Order: sequence, then structure tokens, then C-alpha cells
Amino acid sequence: MLAWIEKCENGDFAASNAALAESATELYAFEDVRLEAPLLNPQKLIFVGLNYYDHAAESNMAVPQVPVLFPKYANSIIGPEDDVIIPKEVTQCDYEVELAVVIGKTAKRVSPEDAMDYVFGYTVINDVSARDIQLSEGQWTRGKAIDTFAPIGPCIVTKDAIVDPGELDLSLILNGKTMQNANTRDLIFDIPYLISFLSRTMTLVPGDIISTGTPPGVGLGHKPPVWLEDGDVTEAYVQGIGTLRNRYVRES
Amino acid sequence: MLAWIEKCENGDFAASNAALAESATELYAFEDVRLEAPLLNPQKLIFVGLNYYDHAAESNMAVPQVPVLFPKYANSIIGPEDDVIIPKEVTQCDYEVELAVVIGKTAKRVSPEDAMDYVFGYTVINDVSARDIQLSEGQWTRGKAIDTFAPIGPCIVTKDAIVDPGELDLSLILNGKTMQNANTRDLIFDIPYLISFLSRTMTLVPGDIISTGTPPGVGLGHKPPVWLEDGDVTEAYVQGIGTLRNRYVRES
Repeated sequence: MLAWIEKCENGDFAASNAALAESATELYAFEDVRLEAPLLNPQKLIFVGLNYYDHAAESNMAVPQVPVLFPKYANSIIGPEDDVIIPKEVTQCDYEVELAVVIGKTAKRVSPEDAMDYVFGYTVINDVSARDIQLSEGQWTRGKAIDTFAPIGPCIVTKDAIVDPGELDLSLILNGKTMQNANTRDLIFDIPYLISFLSRTMTLVPGDIISTGTPPGVGLGHKPPVWLEDGDVTEAYVQGIGTLRNRYVRES
Repeated sequence: MLAWIEKCENGDFAASNAALAESATELYAFEDVRLEAPLLNPQKLIFVGLNYYDHAAESNMAVPQVPVLFPKYANSIIGPEDDVIIPKEVTQCDYEVELAVVIGKTAKRVSPEDAMDYVFGYTVINDVSARDIQLSEGQWTRGKAIDTFAPIGPCIVTKDAIVDPGELDLSLILNGKTMQNANTRDLIFDIPYLISFLSRTMTLVPGDIISTGTPPGVGLGHKPPVWLEDGDVTEAYVQGIGTLRNRYVRES
């Protein structure tokens, strides 16, 4: 998939997508396959923190003046049906449904007005987080960049198929109960702004993933807080893209 | 280089290195070539912050109880003789000489006693930092992961060629004046500990780079502080590996 995004770097993603679908020589029923993550080794996996007002409030953190950035790496990526493994050391495992943008063309210092030209498409990410580690250390890297803590998928929807990424419902269901239920119109920093902002200091390349942040309703925000444990299942949904359905398994 | 490290994943790095050198069919004088970074696209580029006592003190930060981690991505990597480009927005550009470890074998939950078996070799990194951005935001990602802010090289020295990575002199010279001058024996968390610690939650893979932190003497620690500007040159040296010589150019 990454090779393919790079190949059509200056091309028409929608047309390329149709051609790719037509070139398929064998077809499989959806029930007969297990989807992997649609991108396995992006150069950058950049997360934006505290990007919904009510999530910043529930986290007891100030609304940011500029986007808050933290990383994961490819070791965190799993598919839309894979198990999240909770390490022995982690006592406060949390979920975060997010709309993510996949970059399609190399971007450096692009304006917000031009930013959408650099988008390949969209996917769903569950930004699984170890709150005990994240919030006991100043830097969030270690509590976020954990093996299996970034379920991605179930597909990348090309840009043309989403009328307005700033008007998408998103939700997270834990064991059948709705925990997050919001709309991307409540993002503090929208997608054109984020791409423009990031591209001032970082060259974005095809396949880079920018996860735009999570709305309120995370386990941390509940009273008492809700932590994920062995056997729990989350369904992370974004309108027009699909659902990640992941089970949590405590590392033995 | 990354493909080659992966190829000899379970092999004898020193022997493979010798074989690679012998297989060379053309030889060039050192003056006739320009070295690129020895690794261009590692899966992970992980930096350890505040890992020397006196650097934590000069940064007015507490000595960490566990390693402080922050990221860069491949967009930051440049070669040992390339120019660092200071973005227009950055007003406080700083240097940091560091010893970096290159992973050679996949590592998950390895003990400190076994950790050195997973090392491929060592290189030098200058962890160039935008202090104005880094220290005005809670997360360091944006002030660190800037294009060209990770000069790496001039080579990767295989593990067998360094008797003790915990006894290496390292220094940084700015425009001919020594600014940092220390020894890796003063690391708070040593290399075996760092590899073991990281591998608890992150699977390390061949080519991953762990930069071990910088000793005191950074520009931030001087009174008044010293910030890098157009035309400045730093020489970042680690004993037994070599020197990165980078010029700083203000983005036009």
C-alpha cells in the first residue's frame, strides 16, 4: 500500500484506486479474510493530543495554543481485528478513537488553503494509551509507543469518497456500551491547519499518518475511571470509513 | 545499510562487515566522496533525554527516575557533512552531541545482561534542538523532529571495535571552541539498561537507533545562552567513531 501511494504521488488517487480494484485477478469473500493494517511502516506516525475542547477538560489539561504532538512507531501498528496486548507493567490501559489522515504527496510549507491537495485519504486509529506511564512521566512517548497500541484500518478511504472530513461522526463502544460519541466538527485544529502547521518544520511524505486526536469519553475521563482489561472489546468507528474491532489481552 | 543489517540479523556482524569490505570492487579516496548518513530510514529513532546528571542540572530539570524518551523521524536525518537548515520560526537553535546505539537483532524483553547481544554498533548523533519550541510546549516532539535536525555518522562502528561503550570521550566544538567535553561513563542509564528498559514495551528491530543523551555544555546551559546561527559550524565527536561536521544555514 505504501509503495502504491508513492507510485501515484502526483497522480489522481481516485482513478488509481479504481484501476487497482479492476486489476484484481482473484476475489475473496470478506468473511474469508483477515484484514491487516492498511499501512505497516509509514515514515511518520504523528498523533495530535488534546484536540477536542471537552477531551482537554476531562484530561484536566489546558486547551493547547498550538497542536500537541507525540509519536508512535511501526511497532505499535496492528490490524482492525487484531488483539491489543496489554504489557504486564501497564495498570491503566485506555482507548481513544481518532480520525487519521494519510498523506499522498510530499508536503513542505503548504498553506491551509492548499493542504487538502496533499491528502491521500482517511483511516481510523485507536490511540491506545497507558495512562499510568503517560501521566507519570513528562514526555508521553513511552506510554503511547507500545507494541500493538495502534490499531489502524479497516481501510484507507480515498479523499474523493469523503465529502467533508470536518463533519464525520465518530464513536467508541466498549463491550457494547457507547463511551465516545462525537463529530469531527468539534476538532480544535482542523485537518488543513494541521497539515499546514506540521509542514512548516517537517517534510511530510506519502504514507505519513496524522491522527487528529480523540473526543471526550475516554476511560480516564469517567468517574471512577474505566481501564481496559483482559477480554474487553472496543469498536472504534468513524463515519464513511468503518470500524476497528479489537480485543484486549493481558500479556502473560 | 539497513537491508544489510537485517540480512545478517542472526549472524556475526564483525565477520559480515569484513566480508562486505572485501567484496568492494571499486575504491574511492575519502576526499573524493561525500558521506551520507549511514542509516536513512530506521523504523525508530528514539532519543533519551536528560541522561547525564550535569545536563539535567543545566537544563533546570529534575534527574529522571526512568529514561525520558522523545522521537525524531527520518525527515530529520542528514549526513555527517550536510548543512542543518534552521527554520525561519526557530529563534533558539542548540546542539547536543550524543553516542547512539544501532540495534542489530530483534529485541523484546531482553535482560540488561543479554542486551549487548542485540547491538549492531555505534554512531554519533547531533541532537539539534529548537529550544524555543521545545521548552514552550509540554511535549518535545515538535521542537526536536525538525527537518535536518539529526546529523548522523560518519559511520556505524560495529560492536566488536569498541571495547567499552561506557568509557568513551565525547565532545562538541562550536566554531573552534570546545563547548561539551565529557565521557559516557557519566550516563545515568547505561546502554544495557536502556535496551532492556525499552524492549519491555517496544519491540526493537534491526536498524533502530537509540541516542543515549547529551552531556553538559549545550547552548541552553551557557550564561548568556548560545544559539546557533547562519554560518556556525559544529564538530560533534565520539571517541572510536568519528566526527560530524555540520554547518548551520538560516532558512531563507
